[in-house]
Amino acid sequence: MALHPAVAAVRRGVRAALAPLPPGVPVVVACSGGADSLALLAATVFEGHKAGLRVVGAVVDHGLQEGSVDHTARVVDQMAGLGADETLSARVQVDPAGLGVEAAARRARYAVLEQVAAHFATADGPTPVPATVLLGHTRDDQAETVLLGLARGSGGRSLAGMRRAFGPFVRPLLDVTRDDTVTACQVEGIPFWDDPHNADPGYARVRVRRTVLPVLEEQLGPGVAATLARTADQVRHDVDHLDDLAEARHAALAANTPDGSLPVAALLEDHPAIRHRVLRLAALAAGAPASELFSEHVLAVDALLTDWHGQKWVDLPGHLRARRVDGRIVVVHA
Amino acid sequence: MALHPAVAAVRRGVRAALAPLPPGVPVVVACSGGADSLALLAATVFEGHKAGLRVVGAVVDHGLQEGSVDHTARVVDQMAGLGADETLSARVQVDPAGLGVEAAARRARYAVLEQVAAHFATADGPTPVPATVLLGHTRDDQAETVLLGLARGSGGRSLAGMRRAFGPFVRPLLDVTRDDTVTACQVEGIPFWDDPHNADPGYARVRVRRTVLPVLEEQLGPGVAATLARTADQVRHDVDHLDDLAEARHAALAANTPDGSLPVAALLEDHPAIRHRVLRLAALAAGAPASELFSEHVLAVDALLTDWHGQKWVDLPGHLRARRVDGRIVVVHA
Repeated sequence: MALHPAVAAVRRGVRAALAPLPPGVPVVVACSGGADSLALLAATVFEGHKAGLRVVGAVVDHGLQEGSVDHTARVVDQMAGLGADETLSARVQVDPAGLGVEAAARRARYAVLEQVAAHFATADGPTPVPATVLLGHTRDDQAETVLLGLARGSGGRSLAGMRRAFGPFVRPLLDVTRDDTVTACQVEGIPFWDDPHNADPGYARVRVRRTVLPVLEEQLGPGVAATLARTADQVRHDVDHLDDLAEARHAALAANTPDGSLPVAALLEDHPAIRHRVLRLAALAAGAPASELFSEHVLAVDALLTDWHGQKWVDLPGHLRARRVDGRIVVVHA
Repeated sequence: MALHPAVAAVRRGVRAALAPLPPGVPVVVACSGGADSLALLAATVFEGHKAGLRVVGAVVDHGLQEGSVDHTARVVDQMAGLGADETLSARVQVDPAGLGVEAAARRARYAVLEQVAAHFATADGPTPVPATVLLGHTRDDQAETVLLGLARGSGGRSLAGMRRAFGPFVRPLLDVTRDDTVTACQVEGIPFWDDPHNADPGYARVRVRRTVLPVLEEQLGPGVAATLARTADQVRHDVDHLDDLAEARHAALAANTPDGSLPVAALLEDHPAIRHRVLRLAALAAGAPASELFSEHVLAVDALLTDWHGQKWVDLPGHLRARRVDGRIVVVHA
């Protein structure tokens, strides 16, 4: 029997993600019980065993929904039934204060999965290498992330979407559609869970999924999700590189100045793409909180360079002020 | 009587755009008869005359709608009535073959406005400087352009929106809302024209304006248009700078190689944000048509570097092939 294209698509993504791993090491699959992560687990068992890897299924219980203990136990059984060599569940405390439930749950989940990665570390010479943890985010999740970022709008970084890999985490399904993960489960006879959160329009992500993306596809043609995901890959490269260049530039300009001040003349030789980032880094170095430092602030500081007419100072979050003094930009406490 | 905030917003944008111009030179306002360009004209008469500039109102008749000759004559009269020192109209031939009506009309319009700019050039030493031509695009136009670009999806460049200035053209209203231009006309008693094209859902831009943006604002909160426009400014800086860096890198790598081939080892030292652009430039230099060269092509060529396993070649538009030969990437005719 020919392999179903949806199963093939999921396995192709997993195969590429596993390719760098040496035989014998464990690979962890983070599994919610939803179609995406179950399709991921099934494909990882298939491809991982071919490559001689040990497959660990991990489920995190956020304790946020009634019956989450039973649900977690069911997912553990299901992962074992699908051929995982080892399974585990971890319960986390989600403290939504300040962050909101979604962000707090995400933070707790990644923290415990990092512990799992460390637990399954393998020795590579003297230093242990954490196990790789596969996450089931699909191309549709990526498109939603880009649109959410666009609405928040902190420039290129907001459009860069989710990284394909960071720390021990890898996302093998960013080129695979959510539909393909559902179909893969269906043709392989894997029952999956529909998270009731995914139908709650109180979440911006759910509104993007249910309303915004369908309207975009209907009005601008199919393929918008694919386009958004592809754009994210390119923009992420762009902002990563520019951030690197700006960090090096900031370090060079601020070297040997105990007050972290920067010379105006040198900054004016930089392209705005670099200069704006360097000014942002100067504000962060002085203690401005990243979450409150917006492009308006950076552009106001930039005007001390490009539209200098004796401004007294620019107020910055964190009770800071940027001033131009003796041909240098300095950020000090107000 | 206090100045209405909408009028003040339009004038503020115009004032900044006129600031670099020396007294006595003419400034051209491209005027369709719509609210945005009439508000632009009125503000340019006010601010321009204060700055000692000569204001030229120019209307382009695309000959696409019935009654366009009468409409054009009415706009000419209206511009004179609003205080333009000189008015002119130009009729263009729009040939939609290949481009589509919208793009063909735009191309014809910019071409004739460039002639107008040259006609009103002023001598600066031995070389004549074309007159500045103001265009009435608003922040809403910018947001629409970003969303249309996002749906077409050719990476960062597609999100960069409209430039604030290029050649003789300047867009003073990119921070002003369309609503403000309408209000400005209303409070100043300026009757304006509603282009029937603006209600035709056959145009993707109209669908974005009427459906997509309202859904985004409704689902993700107000301010999405402002956010899109701000993001465009940042992304434009980013891609401009990276394009410059990549051009310099391509020129350096291709220097002294008559076949335009590029060394694999050097390319692998570059960040993907630069390398992908350099590979694109190599394909363009070999004759690939820009309009058919997509990121898929560039990534396939990149795989000759990053995933080399003896691939024979990569097909590129323009009957070209990219090959890896003797440690170099070369693009040749198939």
